[in-house]
Amino acid sequence: MQLEHIGIAVDDLESAIDHYENLLNTECYKREVVEEQKVETAFFKTGESKIELLGATDDSSVIKKYIEKQGEGMHHMAFEVDDIYSEIERLQADGYTLLNEEPRAGADNKLIAFLHPKEHHGVLIELCQSKY
Amino acid sequence: MQLEHIGIAVDDLESAIDHYENLLNTECYKREVVEEQKVETAFFKTGESKIELLGATDDSSVIKKYIEKQGEGMHHMAFEVDDIYSEIERLQADGYTLLNEEPRAGADNKLIAFLHPKEHHGVLIELCQSKY
Repeated sequence: MQLEHIGIAVDDLESAIDHYENLLNTECYKREVVEEQKVETAFFKTGESKIELLGATDDSSVIKKYIEKQGEGMHHMAFEVDDIYSEIERLQADGYTLLNEEPRAGADNKLIAFLHPKEHHGVLIELCQSKY
Repeated sequence: MQLEHIGIAVDDLESAIDHYENLLNTECYKREVVEEQKVETAFFKTGESKIELLGATDDSSVIKKYIEKQGEGMHHMAFEVDDIYSEIERLQADGYTLLNEEPRAGADNKLIAFLHPKEHHGVLIELCQSKY
């Protein structure tokens, strides 16, 4: 599977964007709010893959809760698949727990589904498939 | 900067290799012990980037200590640079703290240097440059 992006949970999206623009020496090329998740995302190209900064837009956001518990840092690792439905079937057949049995809409025009970090050595895994 | 790999700290390298071979549907293509770090690494191709599993070879390993404190999970994010010396200079001029002011030998025939996670929104950043 191809690594599509790394999601990083940040407290203050504006200052984190400035920071990563300087660190990576590249500009943030896209920002997008995902209303359903109460998250604003900001993307950076890092070769074939991307860095996705994730900031909460609301105190009820999963990102807000994540940071309260764990602090800022790497939140998930996302892999692009050709067919998310068949990949979900394959992984369920292998006994893995899908946090979303039906893919849902994510940022960047993708269908996404998450796998439970407890079953993957502490890593929250996202499967994603471009909608077009 | 190009994302070169994601390092994942794991408790039992053998079972983690089996697990990620199944999850990613690809074989581990290289294993390498880094004596100085008391770490054994295992690599998986995920497109242009790689996943690097990190298992302690000794109780004094930084990976052992990391897992005791944080649990298993994503440990660092590594970026390939053309000239690690000039990149270190650029980042030091910007006020960032290098954990290694002089690059040292890492796995996969690379020179590496780490940046402090406290200065990068909780992410341990590795700079790496291929030796040839």
